[in-house]
Amino acid sequence: MTGWLAIAGLGPGAARLVTPEVTAALTEATDLIGYGPYVMRVPERIGLTRHPSDNREEIDRASLALQLAAEGKRVVVVSSGDPGVFAMAAAVFEAVEAGDPSWRDLDIRVLPGISAMFAAAARIGAPLGHDFCAINLSDNLKPWDLIERRLRLAAQADFVIALYNPLSKGRPWQLGRALDLLREERTDSVPVVFASAVGDVREAIDTVTLREAVASRADMRTLVLIGSSLTRLIARATGKPFVYTPRSAGGLS
Amino acid sequence: MTGWLAIAGLGPGAARLVTPEVTAALTEATDLIGYGPYVMRVPERIGLTRHPSDNREEIDRASLALQLAAEGKRVVVVSSGDPGVFAMAAAVFEAVEAGDPSWRDLDIRVLPGISAMFAAAARIGAPLGHDFCAINLSDNLKPWDLIERRLRLAAQADFVIALYNPLSKGRPWQLGRALDLLREERTDSVPVVFASAVGDVREAIDTVTLREAVASRADMRTLVLIGSSLTRLIARATGKPFVYTPRSAGGLS
Repeated sequence: MTGWLAIAGLGPGAARLVTPEVTAALTEATDLIGYGPYVMRVPERIGLTRHPSDNREEIDRASLALQLAAEGKRVVVVSSGDPGVFAMAAAVFEAVEAGDPSWRDLDIRVLPGISAMFAAAARIGAPLGHDFCAINLSDNLKPWDLIERRLRLAAQADFVIALYNPLSKGRPWQLGRALDLLREERTDSVPVVFASAVGDVREAIDTVTLREAVASRADMRTLVLIGSSLTRLIARATGKPFVYTPRSAGGLS
Repeated sequence: MTGWLAIAGLGPGAARLVTPEVTAALTEATDLIGYGPYVMRVPERIGLTRHPSDNREEIDRASLALQLAAEGKRVVVVSSGDPGVFAMAAAVFEAVEAGDPSWRDLDIRVLPGISAMFAAAARIGAPLGHDFCAINLSDNLKPWDLIERRLRLAAQADFVIALYNPLSKGRPWQLGRALDLLREERTDSVPVVFASAVGDVREAIDTVTLREAVASRADMRTLVLIGSSLTRLIARATGKPFVYTPRSAGGLS
């Protein structure tokens, strides 16, 4: 049996957003590896071994996956969203580079998925319709001063800013600090979207102004979008306003 | 009949990357609107009217879609990639805001898809594994000096940079200018990926250094990724190297 390793994106959660490519890989897999809740999204079946693990054990997980593939297993590493965006794909390639040289020539494929910022954007309109950036707000793997510098430059570039991993029990103050910093750089009236558990029954999406934005609104399952100077609301008689960023820009505000 | 409008992302082209949600909408649609080649990806069937249009007619297309939905049709506007990323969703909301007030309360949904940068990234490794930005290099709707300023700030922030719409017959010099500017701001050895026609039989993906990068390598179907100071190559005995950006960063280079 020839082993392979697929690093697959399950999207934000709903089955309607899982690509056929990912579904096919899950069907062919002998081994499934990933953070417990993601692994548990895939039903048990005969011939499939599920290896749920804790959060934060990315490199162990990646090495196990590579080892099993080298032994001839058909391995799927599952990520939520897109595996290439602040998820398992980079961890796997870190393990490839540091690990057994033979791992480099394994059949390794990344199967893209719908990342949180696009799922969130789609639910409210088109906030990412103009130039944008994505910043992982976690300072577990990079210094906080680098994150601050990036936020300032991103604000000066007038990007729409997507903040991943804005808050957790171990990182309680970072989002508040980021919002304060953005208030120094950007007009107080720009829309800020808090999108939690997108596509799930617990989905909650709120749009406020940067002035009103409070970090405690976010949790581990929240994606925060900070509008650019162009981002606009369209009021509706029924339901929440649409939020979008027009394609045209006259110049920097 | 209650009309609705879905703005759907077909992904980079291959059926294996079209979400079930988009497939379902295409099955229910009475009218299909979009740039000719995208509309033609969806097979003819009884009960479906296809409205292929030229490129650059986004607002006319969006207004037609809204009008048909208001008349009770089930309308799908198709985009390649993700409709929210430099595609039709923003154009539809521009038309909503400028158009008939009743359009605001139509059933309008955006159905996300796999955007070009994630499809391209997945094919070569995990170049977007750290903070990144996406810049539309077209100066049809924004001044070139804004694009230059954004490129410089993005380089200073050490983002991986995805360049959409890098080149066309009407915009022949912009990518060369952007590469020159990035060479001033970023080390010459960072990897640059030219990814053309991803997922298609004509797919061509090349990784060079910023020093070697030549604009003429790109065409209208190319996505260009500029590595950050962290982006690395993993050489392989067989096949092309993997390209990835580690999750960890020590500080700005």
